[in-house]
Amino acid sequence: MGEPVLALTCGEPAGIGPDLALMLAADPAPLPRRPVAIGDPALLAERARQLGLAVRLRELAPHEAPGPRVVGELAVWPVPLAVPVTAGRVDPANADYVLASLDLAIAACRDGRAQAMVTAPLHKGAIIEGGHPGFTGHTEYLRDACGVDEVVMMLATDAALHGRVLGEAQCPLRVALATTHLPLRQVPDAITAAGLTRVLRRLAAGLRRDFGLAAPRILVCGLNPHAGEDGHLGREEIEVITPTLEALRGEGLDLVGPLPADTLFTPRHLEGADAVLAMYHDQGLAVLKYAGFGRGANITLGLPLVRTSVDHGTALDLAGSGRADPGSLRVALALAAQMAEARARRPA
Amino acid sequence: MGEPVLALTCGEPAGIGPDLALMLAADPAPLPRRPVAIGDPALLAERARQLGLAVRLRELAPHEAPGPRVVGELAVWPVPLAVPVTAGRVDPANADYVLASLDLAIAACRDGRAQAMVTAPLHKGAIIEGGHPGFTGHTEYLRDACGVDEVVMMLATDAALHGRVLGEAQCPLRVALATTHLPLRQVPDAITAAGLTRVLRRLAAGLRRDFGLAAPRILVCGLNPHAGEDGHLGREEIEVITPTLEALRGEGLDLVGPLPADTLFTPRHLEGADAVLAMYHDQGLAVLKYAGFGRGANITLGLPLVRTSVDHGTALDLAGSGRADPGSLRVALALAAQMAEARARRPA
Repeated sequence: MGEPVLALTCGEPAGIGPDLALMLAADPAPLPRRPVAIGDPALLAERARQLGLAVRLRELAPHEAPGPRVVGELAVWPVPLAVPVTAGRVDPANADYVLASLDLAIAACRDGRAQAMVTAPLHKGAIIEGGHPGFTGHTEYLRDACGVDEVVMMLATDAALHGRVLGEAQCPLRVALATTHLPLRQVPDAITAAGLTRVLRRLAAGLRRDFGLAAPRILVCGLNPHAGEDGHLGREEIEVITPTLEALRGEGLDLVGPLPADTLFTPRHLEGADAVLAMYHDQGLAVLKYAGFGRGANITLGLPLVRTSVDHGTALDLAGSGRADPGSLRVALALAAQMAEARARRPA
Repeated sequence: MGEPVLALTCGEPAGIGPDLALMLAADPAPLPRRPVAIGDPALLAERARQLGLAVRLRELAPHEAPGPRVVGELAVWPVPLAVPVTAGRVDPANADYVLASLDLAIAACRDGRAQAMVTAPLHKGAIIEGGHPGFTGHTEYLRDACGVDEVVMMLATDAALHGRVLGEAQCPLRVALATTHLPLRQVPDAITAAGLTRVLRRLAAGLRRDFGLAAPRILVCGLNPHAGEDGHLGREEIEVITPTLEALRGEGLDLVGPLPADTLFTPRHLEGADAVLAMYHDQGLAVLKYAGFGRGANITLGLPLVRTSVDHGTALDLAGSGRADPGSLRVALALAAQMAEARARRPA
């Protein structure tokens, strides 16, 4: 394979997705070499004018691959808006446009035109109001579109940044979640042996296939403070987590834990580890986003295609202002390229 | 007031507490000037030999105040061990020794011989086995000894370190907890309007009195991921947290939130804030300890005396080895001095 083609969906057209694609196109700093934006060229041209960015749009035919990146140019696979857009003003009339952009990226990844997809934020409410009441998010949409039962959400920081913070060899911080968007009250019962087993197998498989890690080491958080302190602060570690890890070690997985989450994120444990599995959202993502400092990205493991995403929302108030920060998109693109290359070297 | 006297309890004698006190005594780097260790001088002398540290012990009479710190000397208020100690081997026969050291520190703070106490780690199991089955920890012991109903646990990082990580003006990260050592399953019901009100009032009062902050700004985490996302991911924010914050704002407290915990710990929110209130242990402390990097300390707010503590345990395997890290104790001493000085300037 040559350098991977990265299909970048611009997401909600009134949000900062188009801005970020244009800002990176204009940026002379190194970036993965074959990105192609998916969106409406007229929208991108108008947003570029608004931002004062001299970016030439190069519209490609649906089956045309982007050439090597040229600073100041943006290759585009066109998808037409339903109605014109004003930056900052969401219009549900464009819901189908947003989903058509996603569908094109999925199709391109599946038929080999692209080797990874990277998604800018969409506006969930606009999709729902625009005629898709069952829509719950990018990740679920991709899961269903790919005919997969379950995926694993993992966030990663930029390796360079994390190396700087730790003052050590560069290594990224990667945090996957055993449960994602659940009320805290529902978390303990959602941590089951069967669910943990599936998540850990998928996480390990994803780290092998998409990160080229032959034998990934995963640190697993406890559910309770101090990982339950021998049952004094909760029994889920004893009854569910520890036996599950033990069984999976029997399958050859390299798992450490359950560890107290408050001391896990320190060099003593993180050195030599490839990823952390947090039991729930805030246990893992508060650290990740503190460490990532606007330079983290979201990864969906378990899909037949490579997908990364920014770790922020549509930031409607910043669209068209020039004040959006492309740091997370830059990391998402770099990760997507790295993952696509690892997958090409070691197919599933 | 002159420089504050800091009473340092050496904690579990088989753990690293004595090591840390000796290592700091030998350290030429700047430290608060009037620390006094509380422990058995024979134990300290033996541990110093084991560590190869040339530290002169200066035994003080019970009512004698330590003079200015001299590098290579350690002032000691003696408390005799019940039985001799081997580093690394806990003996419950010394439980009363550990509690007597605490009692002396408490008495010294209350009668004005000391202006703050700093505690090295004790071994909860040894105290319990040593004849105190109801013992649950340092903090609860101090609370009861001082006749206080409730205290607030807050951790803080070293200001210098946090400034370096953020690459900005130096500011410490301070994280207080609405609930502490509870199984995760019990957390949602433990977040009540009455409890939150008490914690926030105490936290604000502690920041005013012990940190000299006239109008502390406190960021408050939501309980659920995305702070409940308008009720889609839990209703505690709508039903409990938001109305409680609103009522407390009416009393003049400067409260921001409830904010999603995963994005709260980023410069956009942290700049200009004096402390964070996390709803539960792992939500706040994972970030704090990642940021603190072995240089965080624990603070008990709401006591009639100033008390700080290391943020780690007895590390029995490191006692006597010279490999213990005094970073947290250094921060705990510095914070205790700073708090004692603030309290002296602005008595309760």
